[in-house]
Formats: sequence, structure tokens, C-alpha cells
Amino acid sequence: MNRFALKIEYDGTLFHGWQKQQDVDTVQGSLELALKHLDSSCQCITGAGRTDAGVHATGQVAHLDLSKNWDPKQLKQALNFHLKPKLISIVATAKVNPDFHARFSAIKRYYLYKIINRNAPLTLDINKSWQVRHGLDPEKMIQASKYLIGTHDFTTFRSSLCQAKSPIKSIDKIEIVGCNSSTGTFINFKFEARSFLHNQIRSIVGTLEKVGSNRWPIKRVERALSAKNRNACGPVAPPSGLYLTDIEYDFDVFKNAC
Amino acid sequence: MNRFALKIEYDGTLFHGWQKQQDVDTVQGSLELALKHLDSSCQCITGAGRTDAGVHATGQVAHLDLSKNWDPKQLKQALNFHLKPKLISIVATAKVNPDFHARFSAIKRYYLYKIINRNAPLTLDINKSWQVRHGLDPEKMIQASKYLIGTHDFTTFRSSLCQAKSPIKSIDKIEIVGCNSSTGTFINFKFEARSFLHNQIRSIVGTLEKVGSNRWPIKRVERALSAKNRNACGPVAPPSGLYLTDIEYDFDVFKNAC
Repeated sequence: MNRFALKIEYDGTLFHGWQKQQDVDTVQGSLELALKHLDSSCQCITGAGRTDAGVHATGQVAHLDLSKNWDPKQLKQALNFHLKPKLISIVATAKVNPDFHARFSAIKRYYLYKIINRNAPLTLDINKSWQVRHGLDPEKMIQASKYLIGTHDFTTFRSSLCQAKSPIKSIDKIEIVGCNSSTGTFINFKFEARSFLHNQIRSIVGTLEKVGSNRWPIKRVERALSAKNRNACGPVAPPSGLYLTDIEYDFDVFKNAC
Repeated sequence: MNRFALKIEYDGTLFHGWQKQQDVDTVQGSLELALKHLDSSCQCITGAGRTDAGVHATGQVAHLDLSKNWDPKQLKQALNFHLKPKLISIVATAKVNPDFHARFSAIKRYYLYKIINRNAPLTLDINKSWQVRHGLDPEKMIQASKYLIGTHDFTTFRSSLCQAKSPIKSIDKIEIVGCNSSTGTFINFKFEARSFLHNQIRSIVGTLEKVGSNRWPIKRVERALSAKNRNACGPVAPPSGLYLTDIEYDFDVFKNAC
């Protein structure tokens, strides 16, 4: 068997998330359908992160095994051909060792969450960000985010459907940058961690938004975290603002990628 | 009569351009249709720039006259309500003097042209940029662009349909910035001039792309300009990469805008 890694970009708007499901369009399901044209023996494709419905990716990574030793560039082109017209694109392919595992070999995950803070309806960014109409103060969100950096029990900030054994996770970085433009304020949240719980980022962003809009005092985020109770969380932010941007491994998987 | 200025954002993908035409969807036509709900006497809306089909705007400016002295904020909300679900958004409104003219009072126009240089199909940026698959050297395009800055006869770089009396225009700035990412190179072209000829920016970008891809020597752009002949131009770049980003007047029209 020949194992390949893929770097995948997709517009999540019209997909029911990454994970294959019966009778609905998913990213994994679409990739497996495209792969069937190349290798009928290909059983499945394993992604590094299971993004929810409506969540986008610019740097999802997946691995798969093929019976033929494909040239990585040709594999990329063939997959992109069979994926058309779906908004999924293989941006890089690489041959990897059989012990490489897209999910379990990952040492860090990078996500971006985009808020557009303005009153006027979105046009160019519709479905690509979360529109918040009332004023937001990025400075307050930055202060509140500091309680969440480091190793904590994130029970408050994970979906009740989360299947992870432990609610304890380490967030390495939450960077919040606000940028004013004549059409509104763009607020980008960058998250870095070895791994995240289900809905963890959207739960955090939805909670920070409460602080940014002055409806929650900054300190309430600290109390929410220590409550270890899902009910202490703010509302979950919508999926349209979330992007899986990169997965890190202990070597540069796509260094010589085509 | 009460004159108002609007700052307008739109996704040009599904519109047959700015200018009203019979039986097809245009930005001006859609705005006039929305205005009919507010003021049946409203004759027309005048834009600062006539963008072509597929061209986007984040800072188009237009003016219109209404019989009622609308509160600018309410006018914005009412227009946005009646524009739904079209991807046109009024991002700011201001009351202006009756001698303000969106087109003739403009002293400077700002455009952005976006190229994404990569082989893999686009997903998130589809219809929002020009995808160039072969390698491009931004440095060569920067050098070639220098011939075009300043006051010149731009006959080579205007559409044969251009209605401007004179082909002589002054380009104040062409700024080209390339930014590498793991999914490709983003090349942004910023243009500034008092006014542009029809198709001038897309003709220039299409020509510079020939230089960036090493198919034209840099010097050929100088020769193309001095030829004053449409046939000396490179191919016209597609509309999807072009954005009208701002219009400047001798005062800040939207300074106190809602």
C-alpha cells in the first residue's frame, strides 16, 4: 500500500461538515467518491480535524492508502478533476510513510475565526464570517481571552456531544486582531492548540463576543471556565466564521509537495 | 429636493454590471427598484463609476434626490431591507449639498485587482479573484508597471467601446504586492487615478500578467504604451478580480455617516 497526505481547502457552506454521512453532501464523502474513480480498493480517507457543517478549511490534512504508487502531482490533478464542481480543492499532495496518520500524528492545530462588525448586510463575505451588528470592543475580548490560554478543564466550552475522554486541553495561543475599514471592523481570532474539543472554538468566540459587546464583564469568563459547566458558556458562535487553517506535524509533510 | 450620497458594496458576480439595462439584473437597476418603495418620484441614481459585469465594489458612491428629507440612517436601513436578498449593501449614507455629484465631483478613484497564483482550483475565492495557474514573478510586473504611472495616452489600454473623449489619463499609483501562503501566492494590484478609461485596469493587469509569466519582456509594456494601438495590448484580465474600493471627494462625504 502507498500512503499519501493531502492538504485540502474547502468552502464549507454547502457541506454537512467533514465527516461522511448517509444521503447528505460531506467533504469526506465527496473525497471518497472522487477517489473511487482512481482506485476502487480505496477504503477511506482520514482527516486531521472533523469540521462541522458550514465550517471552512484552507489547510485541512488527510491521509489515504492507494494500491498504485501514484505520482503526487498526478494524484492531485486527478482528484481535483473528479471533485469538480464541488468547492473542495486539493492544494498539495505528498507521499508519506505508512506510519503517518493525519489525525494522530498531528502535534498542533491552527484555526481562524472571522467576525465582521457592522450593521449593513454582508455581500462579498456572506457565509464566510460572523456578522455582529452591535458594537464590539476587541480590547475587552483580548483581556478576557487570557483566562483561557494554557491548560484548563474546558467542560464549559465543549459541546454536550463531544466524545473526547477528557475535557482538559491546552490552548497555546488566542490572538485577537481588530482592523478598521471604511465598511466595518474585521476582527480575526487565531487559535493554536495540540487539539480542540468539539465546538470549543465556537463556544469561546461566542462567549468572548458577550464581553466585547459589554453584556458580560471580563471576569465572567474566568468564572465560566472555573464553573466547569456547559450552562455557564455563552452562545455558540455560528460556523460560517470558522476556518481550519493548518495542521502541524513533527516534520514538514508538504515541503516538497507539488 | 434632498440629495443623499450612498456608499455601496456589492458582489458583482450575478450582476450585468452597474449600469441599468432592460431585462437583466444590474446594480443601478436593483437600487432604483428598491428606491421606488421609498419614493415613487425618485428618477434615478447616479454612480461614481460604471463597473462592468462581474466586477465588485466595496466603496462605490452614488447620489440620488428624494422628495422627503430622510434621516440618513433610516434611509440606509430601508434601502437594505428592500435590496434583500440581492448581494448589494448600503454601508453608509449622508445628506449632501445639491451641487454634489457622485461622478463629476470625484477627484480620485481607487481600485484593487486580485490575482491568486496557484494550480489547484479555487474554492473560497471563486469569482472573487483571477486564478493564474502558471508561475508569476511580481517583481517583473512591478518594474513593467512603472512605464504606466503618470500622464500618458492610454489608447492601447482602453476598450474599443470606451466613450471618453480623450485617451489621455494620469495614473497616480500602481502598487503591486505579492504575498505567499501555503495555498498559493496572492498578488494584489492597487490603482489610483482621478479617473480611468473603460477596461483600462483590466487591460493593464492582463498585460502585466504577460510580463509576470515571462512571456513578454518588461520593455514590451513601454512599446505597447507608445504604440497607442489597441492591438498592442495584452488580453483583458477577467472582471472577477476587480474591486472598486473607494472614491475620493474634496471633502469627507461619509465622515459623520451612519
